[in-house]
Parts: sequence; structure tokens; C-alpha cells
Amino acid sequence: MRNDNNSSAARLTANLAQVVELLEIFHREEAQRAAGDPDQPKPAVHNTLPDLRDRLSRMHLADVAVLLESLPHEDRLLLWRQLREQRGGELLVALGESVRVTLMARLSEEELRLAIGQLDSDGLAAIANVLPPPLLRERLLALPEAERHWLERSMAYRADAVGKLMSRAMVAVPDHLTLEQVRATLRNLGELPPHTDTIFVIDRQGVLRGGVPLPALLLSASTLAVSDVMRSDIVTFTAEEEARGAAQAFARYALVSAPVVDRHGKLLGRLTVDGVMDLLRNERAVLNLAGLRGEEELFASLWSSARNRWLWLAITLLTALVASRVIGLFETTIAQRVALAALMPIVASIGGHSGNQATARVLRALARDQLTIGNSFYLLRKELQVGLLNGVVCAAVAGGFAYAIYGQMALASVIAAAMVLTVLLAALVGVAVPLVRRGREPALGSTTLLTAATSTMGFFIFLGLASLFLL
Amino acid sequence: MRNDNNSSAARLTANLAQVVELLEIFHREEAQRAAGDPDQPKPAVHNTLPDLRDRLSRMHLADVAVLLESLPHEDRLLLWRQLREQRGGELLVALGESVRVTLMARLSEEELRLAIGQLDSDGLAAIANVLPPPLLRERLLALPEAERHWLERSMAYRADAVGKLMSRAMVAVPDHLTLEQVRATLRNLGELPPHTDTIFVIDRQGVLRGGVPLPALLLSASTLAVSDVMRSDIVTFTAEEEARGAAQAFARYALVSAPVVDRHGKLLGRLTVDGVMDLLRNERAVLNLAGLRGEEELFASLWSSARNRWLWLAITLLTALVASRVIGLFETTIAQRVALAALMPIVASIGGHSGNQATARVLRALARDQLTIGNSFYLLRKELQVGLLNGVVCAAVAGGFAYAIYGQMALASVIAAAMVLTVLLAALVGVAVPLVRRGREPALGSTTLLTAATSTMGFFIFLGLASLFLL
Repeated sequence: MRNDNNSSAARLTANLAQVVELLEIFHREEAQRAAGDPDQPKPAVHNTLPDLRDRLSRMHLADVAVLLESLPHEDRLLLWRQLREQRGGELLVALGESVRVTLMARLSEEELRLAIGQLDSDGLAAIANVLPPPLLRERLLALPEAERHWLERSMAYRADAVGKLMSRAMVAVPDHLTLEQVRATLRNLGELPPHTDTIFVIDRQGVLRGGVPLPALLLSASTLAVSDVMRSDIVTFTAEEEARGAAQAFARYALVSAPVVDRHGKLLGRLTVDGVMDLLRNERAVLNLAGLRGEEELFASLWSSARNRWLWLAITLLTALVASRVIGLFETTIAQRVALAALMPIVASIGGHSGNQATARVLRALARDQLTIGNSFYLLRKELQVGLLNGVVCAAVAGGFAYAIYGQMALASVIAAAMVLTVLLAALVGVAVPLVRRGREPALGSTTLLTAATSTMGFFIFLGLASLFLL
Repeated sequence: MRNDNNSSAARLTANLAQVVELLEIFHREEAQRAAGDPDQPKPAVHNTLPDLRDRLSRMHLADVAVLLESLPHEDRLLLWRQLREQRGGELLVALGESVRVTLMARLSEEELRLAIGQLDSDGLAAIANVLPPPLLRERLLALPEAERHWLERSMAYRADAVGKLMSRAMVAVPDHLTLEQVRATLRNLGELPPHTDTIFVIDRQGVLRGGVPLPALLLSASTLAVSDVMRSDIVTFTAEEEARGAAQAFARYALVSAPVVDRHGKLLGRLTVDGVMDLLRNERAVLNLAGLRGEEELFASLWSSARNRWLWLAITLLTALVASRVIGLFETTIAQRVALAALMPIVASIGGHSGNQATARVLRALARDQLTIGNSFYLLRKELQVGLLNGVVCAAVAGGFAYAIYGQMALASVIAAAMVLTVLLAALVGVAVPLVRRGREPALGSTTLLTAATSTMGFFIFLGLASLFLL
């Protein structure tokens, strides 16, 4: 109960700060040593590294991973090497994928071999996709046959399938045992895998029959049969189903662990809450909306950071060029009324913003499984009504602004009319885009495309109305 | 093990579809009954409602909540009434807050009293903020004294504190017991609260000493003392610390439950993974980025949906008016070269987009606790380099485009130079905004303000350069 007066965030920050301080001392000592006179005897060997090793070994592995991700490449390697003897493999598994890849690229083959030698089939499965194939094959052959088969099977699932996330570590007992026999079985195991809240029950064919929650096992009389306390309605997943849906079910039903079966109901493995947590965290959504492709780690090379952004930057540039040509259609109109050039971004930016709001609304309903065919139409009608209401308010403000600056009622009327039309169209497009793209990752790029489309519509409607009514 | 060949998502969809079908049959029958000849004897009483009730009572409460959230107000009320006798209170707790409020507004006082009468202090704590104060007081007085004190204390915490999320349901045992005595204590309880993976251990003053994981309790010899198997390094939270940080710790350390203590280390309550899950899910981030304020439920009234969007719509409108005045400064320049009006949105939109990418990068590092003072500068330098690289590429494309359309090398050079400057400035602002606002919810509104600021800078730089060099 050290530090029990500090908040969890403060504890983590303090831990990280201490390691960073030790690292700085180490670098200072290194620099002194390098600057020292080569003829002089070297100063006494500093003991910063053992200190560092000692502190790291007492930290939670998840915290060490956070720490490594916040440090430059050289320091990552230095810290990883302090832990490699015991936890090098586990630490590789705990790192985010892009950091894992850059760190692995700096390890010697021998170091990598040692590290993956520490991993069981679950750990190997988690990083198999980035291991050099010869090393992976070598490690596979060293595994017990059952583990090897399991791992080969796991690697064959699609990247977004439950099978890729499932773990082999679980406890399953035959359905004909008594609770006393189950307890004896568990005592023989010595310890249970992390996040075991349920003992799975299978029949002679290995088909899942249900589960015994740990509390029931603890509190029920020893003479009862497994079938007396077993629950047969536990939430179960199939190895082929989509991992994201399974993660949502974990959140909805507040699951800690759940069995994974094949299409015949045979027990294959187990999902746990920590395995699906990453799918539920918000960072992907934030990145996707801004058009960063997937993982970009803090210390990625300049080149890979720049490349990571090109796709959506290129799309944005392309849409801006299109918008520019749309404005170009009306150059003679603008030449006659320069005020149009100053006013047109107002229409475009309100159009883009209100379209985005409608999209966010639909994305949220999709994420919560709230959308049905029936209420999609309801949602569209509602967004159009909201668009009309907000469009009229914005039109009044923008019209008033135009009149105040330029003193022309006709100009004010045109911008007001364009505003209402644009906001209505933006609501229509904003609802339609994520619905049409449903099934695919809906957030990805929705905003970029939508903003572009609705602002271009705004330019076209405003300048079009102006050329019809003002000249 | 019904349906074990279906995916979890398919199971939920099928369940919801069956209820919706029954609802439609019910409405059809109602309509027929209403249209029937009043002199004729009424048709036999339909049995759709009992069917509906039966199906709902076999559904997981979380699924019923999803279902209610996707239905119009009238149907929500109808379904809630089918469950009110046993699970009306729990169902209110399971609903999202905005749906809960609109449903509660339609319940009679008697119905609401019945529903909250079914709740224990944890359930009451979860919805206390939206209960009519007289009903809440009445219910408080009916609680056993210890529960009432606990609830009053819980209601006094800040809305974003761990104390607001903690639950009273937990098992704590004194540190002088043997494991056999602990087991006897648990058997007397009959069942354990959901998500009990650890039995907490306290001393005579109620101060937390550690925890006994359920597997250790199950597998260790009965004669051992609690202190022999207890772990004293379990992750612990204080009631005052920020709930979002605690949720991140749950994710980082893959926790199922954790004790909450006061500043003297005294055990107050318990956090469980289902209680913090909502804080980790991605929907808030999506909504915040788009400038929707908090919860907006699918069937919110037109008025409240429109109002929900006004804050950021107003900010967007205001920033657009400012941008319009910035362009207005250069009206004489534009009057001489109308091409500028067509080209200026290109600079503005690339500026806005690349600023957003830099912000997303920083937000992600903040969310993962990866930012330190030292690497903030590194991050800024890197974003400036990425901005320079991408800015030069975009400048080449935009310059080439301008030359191809208008055939003027001077114009092409001005847009290229403006593009590089704008992208660099956007990177600077994009990194600075979330860092300066750190501590506050950083995503909220960052994008809206940033897009506005960087596009306005784009207009200013482009038109400013044009008026200096082209006229």
C-alpha cells in the first residue's frame, strides 16, 4: 500500500519521472567518461544501470511499455536491455505495434531469439505477424505439438476475427465431475490464468456445455455435480466472428472472460477483457477522424510520419482543387462583385460544420447498434428539420452581417438563401454518407470527404444564386 | 448454448428484430380494435403483450436498454411497463442518461416510486442526479442508516471523481482470519457481488491492507492465514481522484475490480470494470470532435437537438465572419486578380487539414501519457519538419495547378509560397493548442477552433503575399 494517498495518474507520472531522471544521470556519466583523458584510469564504474534495472523490474509491465513509447529509440533499446533476461519477450508483446516494430529492428538476432523463447503460444500469436519468418518457424518447431497446432490455427484467422484475439490459457473441465473433483483439478494446476472468472465445462467431444463462475465453485457444497451449478447461458463467441462486435458485447454485458467455439460448438479458446480493451479505447476514432492512417508512433521517422498523412492530405488537396474550379466557374460574377469572394467562405464553412454534426449523430447511433431501417428515415427527417431550424438562424446572422458591411439588401438575401439551402443539403449528405458506407469502418475519412463536399456545395449554391439574381 | 453458431452481433440483432416485430403486431391489433364497430363485442383479447413481456424478461438488461434507445418515446414507455414490476428500476439505471430523463418524464409519480424502490444504494447513486428531490429524499429515508450515509457521501463527490463511480457492493474481511474462516464468511453471504475477483483485507480501523485474489482463496490450504496469501501491492484508487485517470489505469493494468480508499487509507468502496467502461468507449471522442455537446439521444426533441449544436455552430459562424473580414481587407487586390478568389480556398483547406493532423498526433500522445516536457519540444520540431516536407509537396501541386489554369508564373509562385508558410504555421498552432489546453478535456472543440484559425491564416498569408508581389 505504498503511495496510497496519490492518485493512479500521479503514481504513474512519478514512476516515469524517476526512470527518466536515472536515464539522464546515466547519459551525463557516459558523456563524462567519453570526455575523460584516455590515458587516465577510467573513473569507477557507475552504478546507475543497476539502479535503473532495479526500478524497472519493480514497475508494472504496462507502465514500462508506456515509458518506452515516450522515449527516443536509443533509450528504448537501453531500457529494454535492462529487462531482456526475464521479461524481454513480454515487454515486446506489451508495446504498441509500431514501437514494437522499430525496437525489434534494432535488436540482434540473438536478442530476438532469446526474447521470443520466453513467450508461450499466446504471446507468440500476438506478435507473430511482425516476427522474421525464419525465427518464427524455428520457435514454432520448439513448441509442444498441441501449442504449435493451436498457434498455426490462430495465425490463419482473418486479422479482424475473434480467433486472432483469443487466448489458449483457460481452464475447462469435463461435465461429469463433482465440484470436489474440479477443485482438486485446479489445485493440481497450482494457479489459474489471469482473468479467470469462469471455469468452462465441456462434454466428451470437447463441445462447450456452459461455465461455472468462480464464486459458485467457492461457495457451493463439494458433493454437488458440475452440472448442478453450471450456467448454460453464458455469452459465447465463435472464432470467425468480427472482433469489434465481440468487444462491444464485452462492454455491453460487462464480461471478464468468455469462451470461443468453432462452428460445431467445440471449445477453442478464450477471450478476456484485457484482450478486447484496445478495440474499445478512443484513440483510433480520434486518429481516423483526422485522417491519420493507423498507428503513428511518437518517434517514427520523419519520412514515415509524413507518408502516414499523405493519403488524406492528397484527398483534401484534390477536393480543394475541385472547389477552386467550382469558384472559377463564377470568376466573371466575382469580378463584378468582389464582396462575394469575402462572403463565400461563410456559407462553405457552416455547410461543412453542420454536415459533420449530422454525421457524428449517425456514427454514434451506428456504434450503439441503435439504427434500424425504420428509424433511419426518422433520423433523416429529423436532421433535415434541425438543419432547417439552424440554417434559418445562421442565415439571419450571415444576412445581417452582409447587410451591415456592404449595405446591399439583395446581397444579404442571396447569402441568407444560400445558407439555408446549403445547410439542408449538408444534413442530407451528412446522414447519407455514413449510412451508405455502413459495414466498413464508418468514421474513417467521413469528415474529410464530407467537409469537402459540403463546402464545395456551399460555394456553388452561393455563387450560383448570386450570378442569377445579382447581375 | 442456444444460437451458438451465430455471432454476438447477429444474436443481438435477431433479438431486437423479434421484439420490434411483436411491437408491430401489437400496434396493428390496437388499430384494428380502435377501428372496430363499438356495438359489436370486442374481439378476443390479443396475447401479444404477454408474448412481448415474456421475450423481454428473457433478454439481457443491457440489450433491453439498447432496444429502448432505438425506439420512439411511446414504444419505450410500453416496453418499460412490461418490465416495471421486477426490473423497472434496474432498466432505468441501464439506460443512457438522456433517454433515462425523457422516459422518466413520462412515468407517473407512483411508477417512479415503485421503480426506485427496487434499487439499492448503488443503483440510486447512479441516477440520483436526475431524480425529483422529494422522491429521492423519501427513498433515502427508507434506506438502512449505513446505506443512507454511504449514498449521501457518494452524492457529495465531484461529478468527475472516482467517488461518484464507486460501488458499495464488495467483500472485505479482517486481516486476522484464516482462509477457512474467510470461506465460512463468504458461504454465509450466499453470493458475491458481480465482478468480485479479489476479497479486500482490512485492519481493525478499516484501513485497507491488501487483497486476496479469488483463485488464491480457492487453491490455498484452509489453515493458512489471510496475511499469508494476501497481496499488498494491488492497484488502489482514492475517492477524490479523477475518474478518467482511474479508467485509463483499469485499461492499462487490465483490472476487473479495485478498492477505493479515503486519504487515510480507509476502505470506502469498490470500482469495477463495468463502471469505468463507459469512460473508455469511443463515442464521446467522436461527438466532441464534431462539436456535439454531450449526449444527444436518437429521439430527442427537434428543439433540444438543434440547441445541442448551437454552441459550436455559433463559434464556427463567428470564425467564418472573422475570416470573411480578413478577406475583405484584400478586396481591391481580388478585384484586380479574380483568380485569387478561386485559389484561396486551396491554401485555407490544406492549412486546416494539416493543423488537424498535428493536433490528432498530440491528442493521442496525451491520451497515452506519452508526453513529457522533454519530448514536447521534440514533437514540435518533428511536426514542423513534417509540415515543411508535406507543405513543399502540396505547394508544388497547387503551384502547378495555378500555372496550368491561369498560365501566370508569378501567381503560381505566390500560392506555392503561401502554402508552405501556412502549413508550417498550422503545424505550430496544431501542436500548441492541445498542449496549452492540456488538463482540460483536450479534444473538445480543438478541431473546430483550429480549422478556423489555420484557414483564416491561409487566407491572410495568400492574399497578403499576392498584394505585395502581384500588383
